[in-house]
Amino acid sequence: MLKDKSEDKTSLSELGEFGLIKHLTNSIKLTHTSSMKGVGDDAAVLQFDKKQVLVTTDLLVENVHFDLSYMPLKHLGYKAVMVNLSDVYAMNGTATQITVSIAVSNRFPLEAIEELYAGIHLACKTYKVDLIGGDTTSSTTGLLISITAIGEVDKKDVVYRNGAKPNDLLVVTGDLGAAYLGLQVLEREKQVFQANPKAQPDLENYTYLVERQLKPEARKDISKLLKELEVKPTAMIDISDGLSSEIIHICTQSKVGCNLFEDKIPLDPQVISTCEEFNMDSTTVALSGGEDYELLFTIDTADYPKIKANPNLTVIGHITEKNEGMHLITRANQKIELTAQGWNALLNKD
Amino acid sequence: MLKDKSEDKTSLSELGEFGLIKHLTNSIKLTHTSSMKGVGDDAAVLQFDKKQVLVTTDLLVENVHFDLSYMPLKHLGYKAVMVNLSDVYAMNGTATQITVSIAVSNRFPLEAIEELYAGIHLACKTYKVDLIGGDTTSSTTGLLISITAIGEVDKKDVVYRNGAKPNDLLVVTGDLGAAYLGLQVLEREKQVFQANPKAQPDLENYTYLVERQLKPEARKDISKLLKELEVKPTAMIDISDGLSSEIIHICTQSKVGCNLFEDKIPLDPQVISTCEEFNMDSTTVALSGGEDYELLFTIDTADYPKIKANPNLTVIGHITEKNEGMHLITRANQKIELTAQGWNALLNKD
Repeated sequence: MLKDKSEDKTSLSELGEFGLIKHLTNSIKLTHTSSMKGVGDDAAVLQFDKKQVLVTTDLLVENVHFDLSYMPLKHLGYKAVMVNLSDVYAMNGTATQITVSIAVSNRFPLEAIEELYAGIHLACKTYKVDLIGGDTTSSTTGLLISITAIGEVDKKDVVYRNGAKPNDLLVVTGDLGAAYLGLQVLEREKQVFQANPKAQPDLENYTYLVERQLKPEARKDISKLLKELEVKPTAMIDISDGLSSEIIHICTQSKVGCNLFEDKIPLDPQVISTCEEFNMDSTTVALSGGEDYELLFTIDTADYPKIKANPNLTVIGHITEKNEGMHLITRANQKIELTAQGWNALLNKD
Repeated sequence: MLKDKSEDKTSLSELGEFGLIKHLTNSIKLTHTSSMKGVGDDAAVLQFDKKQVLVTTDLLVENVHFDLSYMPLKHLGYKAVMVNLSDVYAMNGTATQITVSIAVSNRFPLEAIEELYAGIHLACKTYKVDLIGGDTTSSTTGLLISITAIGEVDKKDVVYRNGAKPNDLLVVTGDLGAAYLGLQVLEREKQVFQANPKAQPDLENYTYLVERQLKPEARKDISKLLKELEVKPTAMIDISDGLSSEIIHICTQSKVGCNLFEDKIPLDPQVISTCEEFNMDSTTVALSGGEDYELLFTIDTADYPKIKANPNLTVIGHITEKNEGMHLITRANQKIELTAQGWNALLNKD
């Protein structure tokens, strides 16, 4: 995507900081009644009346969170927004605004930054979110994206991580592990390409995995679905670091334990077949892979009849008393303690 | 400040991402009634009732916005908060919350990050702002800080950049140019130190300049002062990129022109003497230096008697019709067109 067509490219230093900001923001339209004033002043102005306001922020760093050799910039922009919206949806809220700050080196021409913003704008349009501000600056090395998302929620609807109670059911949306495997597939293709630049990538058998890695969708639909089903989760979190790590967050903050059943973890057939091919354990991938951006929540057992027929939702376990600990019950009926493998951003990196 | 005492240091990879977040956030206390829920869930939860909510964000990148060879990390943390609060005050609002995201390489031990956060916490305490969330991740090279500040303002009090009217007076708080000169002094001392590591820095004659560069204070007091004086500015902006650039922002957005009088620009005696020593023009330094974090605003001429005696406020010019253009009137009574020299983040950098 970053082909060498330098004759068509506009250098960022030509445009300057103010020029770049103007260029990237002049087509922005605000759609939320809560967006009183967007880009163009010292601060954006919002008005939420009696709603509660949700605020969340995530930072994506080149070569830590993404590799531009297989991540198109448009997809990166889209994904950076999803990562943040997912946190708003995990509070059972509606995402309404984002601010976007980027640090970018002169290695990137204007057209590359436009691609990045095309993905950001597409995400905003698709998810009905207003872009209301940000900062644009230079970096000494790579690309860095910092997004803050703002949302609203009725006080009675907000769902924290700390409300799970013993006997509650543990429910997950969609399926798990695909985004991590997509990354493995892309990494392998990168190595093949480095060894033989004429090799054509063969991603045909991995389309779902690659899409989950490159173009994840945040679960905006779940909050609406749960309202229709008249279910309010007792606790909720989004799955960004892997199922295991998120379950531990809910249990720790709710001061409870849990039993998670290995045979209940929802896996796409491509995850199963690719795990076999890569000689990986699919449960480990689902537990520790991360980047699925599905939602994990707990519900009162009385609500089970309301959700059981829904293809979007899978019951994967139940909450226990704290002193029973947090366990995975394997297919062979062994009880293994859950550990936060999680994606450890600070290990093996510099 | 980053002395080699590696035996006392704790490596970040030992602690891990979750450990670091816990370590940095476990002493946070929320003080604002609008802070319903801070760090520890997918998003922070705020409740502003009928106030308008202000949101602003800034990104600081090592070796672009700061140089750790003379910027102590505690000061950096403090300044990073000031940069953001200044934008809230420039809307005539009260800053209430911040989120802090950092990307940090393994070159920094835990103690360095604690220093950075000590400055952030001190700023929060001094300015009565709650730290409600953030993200902590690794970087492949240096340190990067992304802060989003949130504030509140009564709808009737909010001041935008676009309300200046012909005949309004142009007013500035404090004095200008000192922060930029402080940077020049520190840069010079760095070069002296590199040439002769035994040289002791002599900053005695530059204490005000160095303090303005290393520990700027945002003008929280001005909004209160203006209310006491019963003055509501017609337009306001904070001075981060230099006076010239900020005047142009106000004039462009308000669709007006202006006359700025060189002899009215407030300068500290240290600015004047150091400009002589460095053979620099003090007006150029005030116009283009930046990082002063003072406020620039316009008021109706009828309000002039209310502000004229105040030592914090200096009238430096007046607003004209748009077709008269934006001009500096020099001491020699020459009329020079104002240009946005501003600090161009994307020029001469990679």
